[in-house]
Amino acid sequence: MAEYWIGVDIGGTNIVCGAVNDEGRLLAMLKRPTPVDQGSDAVMDRVAVMVQEMLRANQLDIHSVAGAGIGTPGHVDPIAGKVLQASNLNWRDVPIAAGLSSRLEIPVFADNDVRMYVYGEAKVGAGKHFANVLGITIGTGLAAAFVYQGQLLHGSQFLAGEIGHIPMNEISYPCVCGLTGCLETMASGTGIVRQARDYLQAGHPTLLRQIPSEQIASEEVSKACDAGDRLAIDIMNRTGRLLGKGLAAAITLFSPDVLVIGGGVAAAGDRLLQPMKEAIRELVYEGYWSHLTISVARHPELAGVMGSAIFAKERLARSRSNIRCIPPLI
Amino acid sequence: MAEYWIGVDIGGTNIVCGAVNDEGRLLAMLKRPTPVDQGSDAVMDRVAVMVQEMLRANQLDIHSVAGAGIGTPGHVDPIAGKVLQASNLNWRDVPIAAGLSSRLEIPVFADNDVRMYVYGEAKVGAGKHFANVLGITIGTGLAAAFVYQGQLLHGSQFLAGEIGHIPMNEISYPCVCGLTGCLETMASGTGIVRQARDYLQAGHPTLLRQIPSEQIASEEVSKACDAGDRLAIDIMNRTGRLLGKGLAAAITLFSPDVLVIGGGVAAAGDRLLQPMKEAIRELVYEGYWSHLTISVARHPELAGVMGSAIFAKERLARSRSNIRCIPPLI
Repeated sequence: MAEYWIGVDIGGTNIVCGAVNDEGRLLAMLKRPTPVDQGSDAVMDRVAVMVQEMLRANQLDIHSVAGAGIGTPGHVDPIAGKVLQASNLNWRDVPIAAGLSSRLEIPVFADNDVRMYVYGEAKVGAGKHFANVLGITIGTGLAAAFVYQGQLLHGSQFLAGEIGHIPMNEISYPCVCGLTGCLETMASGTGIVRQARDYLQAGHPTLLRQIPSEQIASEEVSKACDAGDRLAIDIMNRTGRLLGKGLAAAITLFSPDVLVIGGGVAAAGDRLLQPMKEAIRELVYEGYWSHLTISVARHPELAGVMGSAIFAKERLARSRSNIRCIPPLI
Repeated sequence: MAEYWIGVDIGGTNIVCGAVNDEGRLLAMLKRPTPVDQGSDAVMDRVAVMVQEMLRANQLDIHSVAGAGIGTPGHVDPIAGKVLQASNLNWRDVPIAAGLSSRLEIPVFADNDVRMYVYGEAKVGAGKHFANVLGITIGTGLAAAFVYQGQLLHGSQFLAGEIGHIPMNEISYPCVCGLTGCLETMASGTGIVRQARDYLQAGHPTLLRQIPSEQIASEEVSKACDAGDRLAIDIMNRTGRLLGKGLAAAITLFSPDVLVIGGGVAAAGDRLLQPMKEAIRELVYEGYWSHLTISVARHPELAGVMGSAIFAKERLARSRSNIRCIPPLI
């Protein structure tokens, strides 16, 4: 009998769930708002209802579902299946895997949403045919994950990949993490908007002045770029170059075969990615640059869902197997 | 019958070889000068003679030697067992594994010397009980390697871990790699000497003026530090802080459990490591710092030999095994 795996991407705005088959193909998906204000139990209830609704609507048998993977923002312990802290959901110590496992009566695994996104891109997306995949998501914040020969690097305390918190000389903004000058305080959606507002306040001429300050999002800065607005172009260039500089350090340390760019702000495309690429080319040893593929995500909306489902599948395969692991070493 | 593994560390000055037993204990070692001027065949001949001499002197049977691992400087392809380029040996495309395998009539594996050093520290040294080991060697240059759950991270083109070539705003020195401002142009033995000479030339008062400029090595700067020389103290502080800043980026990306410091310049101890630690503490998120162990190498002279031998042992185990690999995923 064919088996399916469920992937769920819980965001601060929406929950997206999907069902993936053995070949990693998406068979069904469903999107609903996240009831953030109602707390973690309400979110888990919503996820359980969504999964059942999606399976029914697509004539998929719940008994063929082998397991589910959940990606959530924040600091996640994937061994305990627990969200340790997620500030945009206002969660602390939420046993998400156990909570959903009891609701859905299937094995459930959880990990950080950026890891699940990059894992999806590494398995069935832009990183598919590469051994060393570095993926970043540029959205409200900036984060990265590294997949090495099919394996996610979690690091101590599951804190690997926090490229958004590399210290940068050029930046003097304070960061939510408690440090000053973290890359994501400028190289992120929030960072782009912050720069725009600061320039507006300082009286710089710009088309952005036509928009109420509180309504400015990174999309507006992108649009102003296209209209030839000097300030918006400067912001995008500076942001792209800073991102490229942070990535230069990451590339020199990880030596990826492919760099996959995802997240909402990646939609700015070459306005941001062109200066990013130029900075990388200038700042890394030629041996990295000449072998590096830079690609936007192949599944920008669904990589997290697909990655979560495949993660569940692989974790189940491991827990079912008695074979002692002997990794390839190189 | 008990098996042994040979480890060989080929440096620009000396060759060190050793024999390691199943528990990773060193049973014998031998050190001889590297005949660099005589080319790669002479070096391989020397290694073969050394290994036989060492086994004989310690009554170890060559027939009990299961294999050998070789660490060499430069860019090494560990799959082909080839030194692609090693500038301090003046080597290019040297098939070191095959050359030594035919001389010693045992399986031989090769990898980069810093990787072998960090692998040795991760397996039987200061990183032994940690899942995520970041190791650096500060010598003529500066390099790093990362061992993740017992597995070395090689990256694309086997170029992962080149922390010495992270671009730093504070640095304007040109680097041998073709870039400008690479961390190792200041944070290395060569970098410390370069700074001292530049200050001497600019006329700064310092005890180092008593030494002929061409005889200044990083040890002299260390000694001048201890004598209270302001300039030498400044150089060590600046170098340590730069090293800490580069490491802050690496820690934020890898999230190691332990940072192991090795290489000749590490002998400078707290003169260099104290400002390094202060910079790391200031520049990384508290979640990293509070879980990070910082340790000097447990086998500063022999980690490369032991790591090479254990690497050979593990590679042999893999090549003998038919078990399909299922890594643990987390």
